[in-house]
Amino acid sequence: MHERYMAVALEEAKKAEKLDEVPVGAIIVRDGIVVAKAHNMRETTRDATAHAELIAVRKACEALDSWRLADCEMYVTLEPCLMCSGAIILSRIKKLYIGTMDPKSGAAGSLLNVFEDYWFHHKCEVEQGILANECSKILKDFFKNKR
Amino acid sequence: MHERYMAVALEEAKKAEKLDEVPVGAIIVRDGIVVAKAHNMRETTRDATAHAELIAVRKACEALDSWRLADCEMYVTLEPCLMCSGAIILSRIKKLYIGTMDPKSGAAGSLLNVFEDYWFHHKCEVEQGILANECSKILKDFFKNKR
Repeated sequence: MHERYMAVALEEAKKAEKLDEVPVGAIIVRDGIVVAKAHNMRETTRDATAHAELIAVRKACEALDSWRLADCEMYVTLEPCLMCSGAIILSRIKKLYIGTMDPKSGAAGSLLNVFEDYWFHHKCEVEQGILANECSKILKDFFKNKR
Repeated sequence: MHERYMAVALEEAKKAEKLDEVPVGAIIVRDGIVVAKAHNMRETTRDATAHAELIAVRKACEALDSWRLADCEMYVTLEPCLMCSGAIILSRIKKLYIGTMDPKSGAAGSLLNVFEDYWFHHKCEVEQGILANECSKILKDFFKNKR
């Protein structure tokens, strides 16, 4: 089941790739329904905050008409950065599923882990390694082609 | 000079207060010119990401047509949270001036300090205590009236 949702996030990552954006995709699910889908749009929109996860949070808030996404889960192909991890915690998302980890800027276990329970009131559970090979491959291929 | 810019951020915080939003304001300055002004809009927009700093970053990116705000400085009335600190680092803002600190959720020295140089490539300098009393008072008055 988790693989099926991560595959939807991967489709989003592919949309980013076609725009020559770093291929990262994220979706938000509530009660089995996908309420938001987004992909990285930083270069296209020239907006430093236009990461897949942050756009997904904004879209889900709009779709559900609430800033509280307490019954929601996020699937993201790459470990979130500091900003996106903060947005996930602020919006009260209850569980985060990660495809592959990001040793360079991940904030869910790589550089630091802001989801550990000693910092924030809201606790978001994290599970990693969902379709890890596929989520990693699309990024590796993207950067290989850039060289 | 810093007090003058922080006073503009405080004017933004007052706009938030009038909307019954937690009164926080932020502005972004480049070469002495204010390129973006924003205030907290979380309740009004029902968007978990609608903090003053994040909106200011998005507005500055739009105004300057670039996601890189390398020559910019931010003035914010309250210490940024994790998400906003991440947005400040991602957008390459070179200096951050803070009014008052936030012991509950600040990520620039209170709960943690993500601006310390060992985590991220980009280094944003931080200075705190600009109009600290005024920036603190508007928050205290707001929460006092809430009770």
